[in-house]
Amino acid sequence: MTDRDVKDTEELEKKIGYKFEEPRLLKNALTHSSYANESRGDIPDNERLEFLGDSVLGMIIASYLYNMFKEYKEGNLTRMRAGIVSEVALAEIARGIDLGHFLYLGRGESNSGGRDRDSVLADAMEAIIGAVYLEGGLAKARELVINLFKPIIDRNSQGRGFQDYKTLLQEELQRNGDKDIAYNVVAERGPDHSKTFVIQVSYDGKIIGKGKGRSKKEAEQQAAKRALENI
Amino acid sequence: MTDRDVKDTEELEKKIGYKFEEPRLLKNALTHSSYANESRGDIPDNERLEFLGDSVLGMIIASYLYNMFKEYKEGNLTRMRAGIVSEVALAEIARGIDLGHFLYLGRGESNSGGRDRDSVLADAMEAIIGAVYLEGGLAKARELVINLFKPIIDRNSQGRGFQDYKTLLQEELQRNGDKDIAYNVVAERGPDHSKTFVIQVSYDGKIIGKGKGRSKKEAEQQAAKRALENI
Repeated sequence: MTDRDVKDTEELEKKIGYKFEEPRLLKNALTHSSYANESRGDIPDNERLEFLGDSVLGMIIASYLYNMFKEYKEGNLTRMRAGIVSEVALAEIARGIDLGHFLYLGRGESNSGGRDRDSVLADAMEAIIGAVYLEGGLAKARELVINLFKPIIDRNSQGRGFQDYKTLLQEELQRNGDKDIAYNVVAERGPDHSKTFVIQVSYDGKIIGKGKGRSKKEAEQQAAKRALENI
Repeated sequence: MTDRDVKDTEELEKKIGYKFEEPRLLKNALTHSSYANESRGDIPDNERLEFLGDSVLGMIIASYLYNMFKEYKEGNLTRMRAGIVSEVALAEIARGIDLGHFLYLGRGESNSGGRDRDSVLADAMEAIIGAVYLEGGLAKARELVINLFKPIIDRNSQGRGFQDYKTLLQEELQRNGDKDIAYNVVAERGPDHSKTFVIQVSYDGKIIGKGKGRSKKEAEQQAAKRALENI
């Protein structure tokens, strides 16, 4: 690798929080097929790593959602995951670490804006996840993924991108006039690092639903969901 | 759990080669929503575990194919995986361990042939993979999956279900008359547990292609593929 490669590699490793023992693996993840083609096949492109990374990412997110949202049914989990691992979300994360700057692209691809193309960025992001999994195993890949995806997971689990039961409940109740809706924590269980909250929602002073979750937000959503089923 | 449950559980554990510390997790994986519905919601169905197992399975197969078929491009790997993790394949594996017998189904579902329905069997198979992953981690889940799926992986990697280059080459060459096609091993590299084979294919005594792979079959396919590109 050239000096420029090494310098760039170290900068990117800092951004993703993983140091490769084999920097060539990272370079492989950053190599678009257009660049590989111009090298007359001497350099592998990142498509195989993307294939691997796509499934590693899907599994890590599925496992995370399964454990975090114990009250959610399969349909909700599937919808949340679809929002989280979309091309748009991957490209957003890639832009957040300025991934376009580090890509190896062919001249044509580079000149036509490839460094900021959603598909190119998303594929390289998945390839990086695949590369970290290959070298560092599932634990390192999970660290990377959760670290990078946390804002998008939070956004998707707070109603944007899927059903927001609190808003739905409010809309439903306001048809009956503007009375007070209140959410109260009635219990906190477990140690700090894995707490469960129980929250009751009341309307006009009467309890209409109860929910639990790993965060207050999640417990409120569950309480609202139950209330919607009850009313 | 009843005595019948315990006896069944042990029998199934022998078939899948994994013993649950928490047999309720296995029962959860075996519980169809129709049974859960009849229990008035007291018993969880297997849909959340199926969501998890589906992604665990996809990742294990992707990782296995990535490592086994180093010469294959992303397109080939994707096609192979699609053949291996299909509902039909999962149902076939489920029937191989007589999974239908162990399922908890509602009366209607059971009476209408649910124990032999592809979708019901495939979903429960995925839920079992999810349950083993949850309790035993990735290593145990991989053991289970590779053990159960090996015949289907082999079938898919030997040309049934995707491009068989040897057959294609033979068909191509026979247009020129019936001359001799031969495959010869020209090198074996690496230790026994991770060998690489290099194979040359010749036609009428002339070498027309060379390929390498983790097995002789794979190396022959690669040699045939190259020959097809050359001729």
